[in-house]
Amino acid sequence: MERIPILRMGEFLLVTIQVDMHDQLALTLQEDLTTMIQKKNAKGVLIDISALEIVDSFIGRMIADISAMSRLLDARTVLVGMQPAVAITLVELGLSLSGVRTALNVERGMRLLRMDWDSWEGVDGRHRG
Amino acid sequence: MERIPILRMGEFLLVTIQVDMHDQLALTLQEDLTTMIQKKNAKGVLIDISALEIVDSFIGRMIADISAMSRLLDARTVLVGMQPAVAITLVELGLSLSGVRTALNVERGMRLLRMDWDSWEGVDGRHRG
Repeated sequence: MERIPILRMGEFLLVTIQVDMHDQLALTLQEDLTTMIQKKNAKGVLIDISALEIVDSFIGRMIADISAMSRLLDARTVLVGMQPAVAITLVELGLSLSGVRTALNVERGMRLLRMDWDSWEGVDGRHRG
Repeated sequence: MERIPILRMGEFLLVTIQVDMHDQLALTLQEDLTTMIQKKNAKGVLIDISALEIVDSFIGRMIADISAMSRLLDARTVLVGMQPAVAITLVELGLSLSGVRTALNVERGMRLLRMDWDSWEGVDGRHRG
């Protein structure tokens, strides 16, 4: 397993993390993802972690980094599928992933990205409540 | 890693295979998938193997089995993301995965499922060419 696959779904990209991350794999993922955002003109990234039973500070930081990088490339990131136990651990560890948006599952994440995108597309001087 | 996550995307399910399969993991996947097809009333299953560099007869049979099981539960299966080298090996091994439909990537696979579903929805005695 050398790289984590990135699936394109319309204007969004989906990354499913199923394996233990290590430095090189995380770096490769960041490279692949940023390249793909640019090449495919992707508007959003969904990171699915439903397979992860543990999210440590390394993965937490990687997710925050990916989110920040995507934002610089004008793509929004949504983290989906977090298991309840992971949410508990993250808060206990003091890793609240601030700045990273989350959704219950891929479907809701995609809806969130779509709403977001529509609202950006629709913005032309009007104030939106 | 005890189970492969199954993501719901509208009326379809997406399975991304990233890790080496073994007996128990394959059985768990089949159980999880068939349960989810029934519970979520899924109309189609996308199996993404873009991360696999090798598909042996075990995985080939597992995919064929999943496809057959899904069909019995009234869901269609499309295998997506096959690497060119995998296609070569499969044919050389005599595993042509007959009965399993394929598409280049998730997007096209989803379009295929949607077309398929629409055509089924639209069938009411009319002959479709």
